Amino acid sequence: MKIDGVSYRSIWLDETDGWSVRVIDQTRLPWSLDLIRLTDLRSAAHAIRSMQVRGAPLIGATAAYGLALALRQDASMAGMEQAAETLAATRPTAVNLRWALDRMLTRLRNTPADARVKVAYHEAGLIADEDVAQNQAIGAYGKTLITDVAATRPGPVNVLTHCNAGWLATVDWGTALAPIYAAHDAGVAVHVWVDETRPRNQGAFLTAWELGKHGVPHTVISDNAGGHLMQHGQVDLAIVGTDRVTRTGDVANKIGTYLKALAARDNAVPFWVATPSSTIDWTIADGVTEIPIEERDASEVTTLSGRGLDGRVTTIRVVPSSSPAANPAFDVTPARLVTGLITERGLCDASEPGMHALFPDRAA
Amino acid sequence: MKIDGVSYRSIWLDETDGWSVRVIDQTRLPWSLDLIRLTDLRSAAHAIRSMQVRGAPLIGATAAYGLALALRQDASMAGMEQAAETLAATRPTAVNLRWALDRMLTRLRNTPADARVKVAYHEAGLIADEDVAQNQAIGAYGKTLITDVAATRPGPVNVLTHCNAGWLATVDWGTALAPIYAAHDAGVAVHVWVDETRPRNQGAFLTAWELGKHGVPHTVISDNAGGHLMQHGQVDLAIVGTDRVTRTGDVANKIGTYLKALAARDNAVPFWVATPSSTIDWTIADGVTEIPIEERDASEVTTLSGRGLDGRVTTIRVVPSSSPAANPAFDVTPARLVTGLITERGLCDASEPGMHALFPDRAA
Repeated sequence: MKIDGVSYRSIWLDETDGWSVRVIDQTRLPWSLDLIRLTDLRSAAHAIRSMQVRGAPLIGATAAYGLALALRQDASMAGMEQAAETLAATRPTAVNLRWALDRMLTRLRNTPADARVKVAYHEAGLIADEDVAQNQAIGAYGKTLITDVAATRPGPVNVLTHCNAGWLATVDWGTALAPIYAAHDAGVAVHVWVDETRPRNQGAFLTAWELGKHGVPHTVISDNAGGHLMQHGQVDLAIVGTDRVTRTGDVANKIGTYLKALAARDNAVPFWVATPSSTIDWTIADGVTEIPIEERDASEVTTLSGRGLDGRVTTIRVVPSSSPAANPAFDVTPARLVTGLITERGLCDASEPGMHALFPDRAA
Repeated sequence: MKIDGVSYRSIWLDETDGWSVRVIDQTRLPWSLDLIRLTDLRSAAHAIRSMQVRGAPLIGATAAYGLALALRQDASMAGMEQAAETLAATRPTAVNLRWALDRMLTRLRNTPADARVKVAYHEAGLIADEDVAQNQAIGAYGKTLITDVAATRPGPVNVLTHCNAGWLATVDWGTALAPIYAAHDAGVAVHVWVDETRPRNQGAFLTAWELGKHGVPHTVISDNAGGHLMQHGQVDLAIVGTDRVTRTGDVANKIGTYLKALAARDNAVPFWVATPSSTIDWTIADGVTEIPIEERDASEVTTLSGRGLDGRVTTIRVVPSSSPAANPAFDVTPARLVTGLITERGLCDASEPGMHALFPDRAA
């Protein structure tokens, strides 16, 4: 997608040397656009661990390139396995991280040591390109949901989203935002209600930034506002991403997603979940009881960073120092509240039969 | 209620001069406890408009005292009517503001000009004292909801609340927090989940502060977290306050209340609304279409103040400067989602028959 008219991906090979890896330091957004250069295993692992890169698909691509960088230092079998372990340990809960590393290792274990670097770069490039292609497909299928509304009346189609499932979370296009970019780029008038997404504010910090830089009209709202907007006909549809979908269609996503799904149902607003099939966990049937919910540090609730009046990024405390805080990071939206899934193979019901019909090869 | 062991009300006559009005500057909490002095119409109107005082009952009491202050400057009929109009225009959603002013005007229109100041102070004092008595009654009736849960199992009763409907929002005791204070003071173990309540953070800034100062166990959570907690059995009941209740039981309250009511219903968690009968608007039947919702300045969403690492209160920007924001301040929870009302006359259904049975004199 574009930043002020210039096309970017969230990860790419440096044009000047052809081997080092460039990413955007997402911990500095939206206050400054800092491009950083990953040159070795250490810097790649640090980028994932410190959330300079985040979003499951982008983490996978970064790990793949990180392994290629590691092989430049040590292409031995032992060095490669060690490097993969280091990368896998950076965010042990991210599904795509393990998936990308397994794919790389499968390809590289049968490759002679002196060819591994070249093959690793090639495979990492494929992983990145395939992610882009999947998200483009999600965008194309999801776009129809937006154009269908646009066909019924004048004025922009209002889409509500929660957290960041945009191009910054993937290699390009995003998942939940891919249909929005596809519609916008095709000339369909779209306006996005961007949930702030406390406590880490990925909506206000990342989604608002990337939509603004690409030129998509949007308005930031507090997480509390979505129900009211839906009651008053100001939301045509909701589209969110997901961290894990059960085979029955339950959806784990950023904390607060469930509340928006309840409001959507109460107001007959379609509630769609954009997901590549790699995010579907075919082994789990009950999301509420079976998906573990990460409890993150309370400091994410009690403190917040932003740009001070002096222009510098400043951290402030927003809870009295004597008050404790709790910080569950995800919640589960039961399938009964999900209108459907937007996948790289098309739209389907958030149900076992619906998903099975679209992915007979995956749903064993 | 108590601040570090010392009893306070949220509004009182200055002890030294007997006519100026003291309030706590709630825009400075929780970072500093600043008492301010209202001396005329202008300062009283400013206190309400700028939310130095807020909360429907406290707004009503402040408007009443504000009219008394105005009469000290101009006790003519025209001056009085003009002052009442100025005060009525400070906040659009809270019904108590209009109610308190109407009560004052009814009393004062039949009072000779030279007696108006004295009568106005007397009437404002009655409004304040009656608010305290009403809230104590709400506390006593609502306490039974907490003790009923406590009787069924060991461990603290977990109550979720949104925004601040504590003693700071009233003259004393609060509405939603009155049952909690009553139970806590009676030795019942209560723990409160405090919604941060973006964008003005009255939960984190005011509710957490007043609960902490009074010694009530509590945990601050992001507004997004309540649904997840309810899904996992961690909320026994929800109690919120309200800015206006229709005669049919629809409830206007801080933006985001509706989302918690939806989650409560989805998880069979009782959802109670604490309200003095003065907050009931007997003229309105449909809350969603008839209650005006205040749209506040976008800067409340795009900037946030807190305590910086240097100890000073600092304002930071939390939305990219190129992104617009919207800020509806209230939403309406339909009566069908409300388990019941906690009033000064007891508990009742959030319905026309339920409210009529308890208030046959009011429901014309």
